Amino acid sequence: MKKALFMLLAALCMLAQAQTVERWGSIDIDLKGPAGGNPFLETELSASFRQGQRMLKVPGFYDGDGQYKLRFMPDSVGVWEYETHSNRPELDGKKGSITAVAPGAGNHGPVRVKNTWHFAYEDGTPYWQVGTTSYAWTHQTEELEQQTLRTLAAAPFNKMRMGIFPKRYEYNRNEPRFYAFEGQPPKQWDFSRFNPAFFRHLEQRVAQLRDLGIEADLILFHPYDKGAWGFDSMPPEANERYLRYVVARLSAYRNVWWSMANEFDFVKSKSMEEWDSYFRIVQEQDPYQHLRSIHNAFVFYNHTKPWVTHVSVQSGALTEDFERAVLLRDVYNKPVVYDEVKYEGNFRQRWGQLTPEEMVLRFWQGAIAGTYVGHSETYQHPQEIAWWSKGGVLHGQSPQRLAFFRKILSESPAEGLEPIDKWQDHPFAGKHAQYYLGYFGTKKPEAWPFVLFKTGLQDGMKFRAEVIDTWNMTVTPVDGVFEIRKRDDYTFADKQGRSIKLPGRPYMALRIIRIP
Amino acid sequence: MKKALFMLLAALCMLAQAQTVERWGSIDIDLKGPAGGNPFLETELSASFRQGQRMLKVPGFYDGDGQYKLRFMPDSVGVWEYETHSNRPELDGKKGSITAVAPGAGNHGPVRVKNTWHFAYEDGTPYWQVGTTSYAWTHQTEELEQQTLRTLAAAPFNKMRMGIFPKRYEYNRNEPRFYAFEGQPPKQWDFSRFNPAFFRHLEQRVAQLRDLGIEADLILFHPYDKGAWGFDSMPPEANERYLRYVVARLSAYRNVWWSMANEFDFVKSKSMEEWDSYFRIVQEQDPYQHLRSIHNAFVFYNHTKPWVTHVSVQSGALTEDFERAVLLRDVYNKPVVYDEVKYEGNFRQRWGQLTPEEMVLRFWQGAIAGTYVGHSETYQHPQEIAWWSKGGVLHGQSPQRLAFFRKILSESPAEGLEPIDKWQDHPFAGKHAQYYLGYFGTKKPEAWPFVLFKTGLQDGMKFRAEVIDTWNMTVTPVDGVFEIRKRDDYTFADKQGRSIKLPGRPYMALRIIRIP
Repeated sequence: MKKALFMLLAALCMLAQAQTVERWGSIDIDLKGPAGGNPFLETELSASFRQGQRMLKVPGFYDGDGQYKLRFMPDSVGVWEYETHSNRPELDGKKGSITAVAPGAGNHGPVRVKNTWHFAYEDGTPYWQVGTTSYAWTHQTEELEQQTLRTLAAAPFNKMRMGIFPKRYEYNRNEPRFYAFEGQPPKQWDFSRFNPAFFRHLEQRVAQLRDLGIEADLILFHPYDKGAWGFDSMPPEANERYLRYVVARLSAYRNVWWSMANEFDFVKSKSMEEWDSYFRIVQEQDPYQHLRSIHNAFVFYNHTKPWVTHVSVQSGALTEDFERAVLLRDVYNKPVVYDEVKYEGNFRQRWGQLTPEEMVLRFWQGAIAGTYVGHSETYQHPQEIAWWSKGGVLHGQSPQRLAFFRKILSESPAEGLEPIDKWQDHPFAGKHAQYYLGYFGTKKPEAWPFVLFKTGLQDGMKFRAEVIDTWNMTVTPVDGVFEIRKRDDYTFADKQGRSIKLPGRPYMALRIIRIP
Repeated sequence: MKKALFMLLAALCMLAQAQTVERWGSIDIDLKGPAGGNPFLETELSASFRQGQRMLKVPGFYDGDGQYKLRFMPDSVGVWEYETHSNRPELDGKKGSITAVAPGAGNHGPVRVKNTWHFAYEDGTPYWQVGTTSYAWTHQTEELEQQTLRTLAAAPFNKMRMGIFPKRYEYNRNEPRFYAFEGQPPKQWDFSRFNPAFFRHLEQRVAQLRDLGIEADLILFHPYDKGAWGFDSMPPEANERYLRYVVARLSAYRNVWWSMANEFDFVKSKSMEEWDSYFRIVQEQDPYQHLRSIHNAFVFYNHTKPWVTHVSVQSGALTEDFERAVLLRDVYNKPVVYDEVKYEGNFRQRWGQLTPEEMVLRFWQGAIAGTYVGHSETYQHPQEIAWWSKGGVLHGQSPQRLAFFRKILSESPAEGLEPIDKWQDHPFAGKHAQYYLGYFGTKKPEAWPFVLFKTGLQDGMKFRAEVIDTWNMTVTPVDGVFEIRKRDDYTFADKQGRSIKLPGRPYMALRIIRIP
């Protein structure tokens, strides 16, 4: 009798455990269903999750061996009741409930657009994007992938741009460990049957990034298949099924972003209308509305389209200069991420030859423009293991400076850095009358006259200043307090006409903070 | 009998004369109709003009004193049959025909978009936009307006940006000669009754610009009313009537462009939805589909919208640097006109303080980016007659350099100048393997190594070169012929490794032309 009670309690505990998840955590509801025929094509499954007046429609998926799953991410605490819908009686009408509890440490929810041009986690915590790219890191050996994760744990990056499909290109010649479809490598695929092992592996990596506090910017399509496998040129109905399957499996991971493509305009098999329709599928299917964008080579996608949440752009030139970088903000009125600005390294290709100084400069110029920038590394390597593609370890000198950069960002106003006086060659961003972050790039000023643009200013306001060496990673307070007085139609200046001394080196920044 | 025959012949001649017009010329069909009530509100009038399978629906207008007009611009030679439509029997069902003959010298038709990013007249002649702005020149004395026209006749400009309504702003304190509406100045207007004299005056000026080969970029709304007359804050139905009336009166002038607004975002009385709806009215009403755009202060209008034919942008910074300027081309895939890039002059305001060198530099940087730029002048004047606003004479040093600039453009490939190697700090535009125009801006190179970007090139191609001093307005041929050979993955170079000597001065350009 005692033993029976104990077993009952244990079962109840297990049940209770299985049914509880933290807010913005992910929980699977497992169901048994038909394994015969082609469940990927023939079985429809979804569930309605309800809490009060809110309902989220969650797509389910087939995980092989007669196993079906509904993967759910509750976005508020409390009880969520669910009911399944299916064309198969054994999967239809199943009911249950999930209890969402308060999020654990480090769980701030998905990243959302904030203040038009910026990002924040759903709980309001600012998200200062400092991204990196490793296109094919999840298609390497277990050892190399683990090394990449260890590298990331110590690196400054809070977003990883990564392809779902493997890559075939210079420096990328290895076959992946897993393929997304059933079939015979390299090219005989049944695009109507997914390979659950491929996706479980990908999900594990996404979850590991999540646990490191890193957003996974998942690239859904890319052109670098080069006839190796044909994943860049599947028929439209296969693309659509693939998108639905990926969304069903991965949208419950709070750190997912959807990047419709890398260099979409180099994918010659898809028309602009197809790209639009694929966006709409992801938009409709994703219950959590993760961030969505698309990355270009030479043709910019029309980022004003309503399904684009933020601008993702490749440009080798725009972040060399904050007055270039600011322009896409003005044009699109969405957050702008310069995801590819050339890479630090020594590749033969001119897009892979930035010095570390040039790499770091781009992050600062982007920040002063109120935009966000991405890193990667293209150093030649005897085994062709470049971070940009396969991951591994970082060899460059920019990451430690980007850690310093990210720390400076994290000390900035939560609203995001806003350009202070656009189109006037004024290298400052911040918050009027509160906080000014200036950056002089490759210029080597010996001094900076204490002059601020007028917005929000009044005579008598007081400020303190710090000189920041962005390369040597030092912050040096400036002695004294600067009290301002109106100077002309546009500016206020230190009432004693003082300047701040600067060391005549490049890559210097200034931080000016109002004293209450 | 002889006399009667003569009179009949004279009448027939007059009739034939009245009914004949050159292609892209403008002809009025006059009709008598009701003068009572409010004809502007109560009389509907239009006509269908047919030639073969084509029909143009032309809006008519009331011109006061019981006179109605249909103003027509035939876009092809031959007979056009028309029939009027009206809610008034005396104006309805009138039939007749117009014969369009070949255009006269200097008549190339309206300007159209060509090759995505460029312009051409409808007869195919390239249109290299070199614009200027005089916002209120048609609201001055007869003497001053005639002086403006004489100035324009000798100036390099082929587009005039100009407001339909008068302007109230610093340097603009005079009342206009005519008002667009009946009523009592300054502010008691009957917005339901137009003043035909105002429009006849405007039309005369537009026709005079046309005869000088100058496009009239008509600004339909602007914020610089400042409570003087209230033309910036009429009710929506008055705005709509005004747009229809303007289109009915002015669209038959081939040199008309529609600029929905100057600094639209400073017009606080109109929402974005209203701007969109006003664009649609102009788009629907204009039988000839003249170019349409809208000009900004700090907020960019979404120029991807389908009714926007080309981008019209104010920015003080974008044309300082061709790598900034090129970006709006990439974003919008429409011709880009930087209509306001600050002005040459010595105003107190920082937007009116360009040196002539800075003014000219912006045109060249814009051209190297494959875009177009606008001029104006803001020199202080004892009677506050600044070209930018009232016209008169030009005092600056940029116009003669812009004449030289326009000549260089006119010698360029008819397809338009296309950036040769974007995003790589490569200051060349032109046509691959045919024509390269480079511009070094404020840099002072002593030499330029003869190296061309690879597209279209082959070993053995031969080129000649000219050194252009854009400020001193000289073109100096470089001795010898340059034969190229592949140099690396990206470039071809002179096979002897030669450079072109440059004088170490700023504002130098290079022209490199393939020898067949």
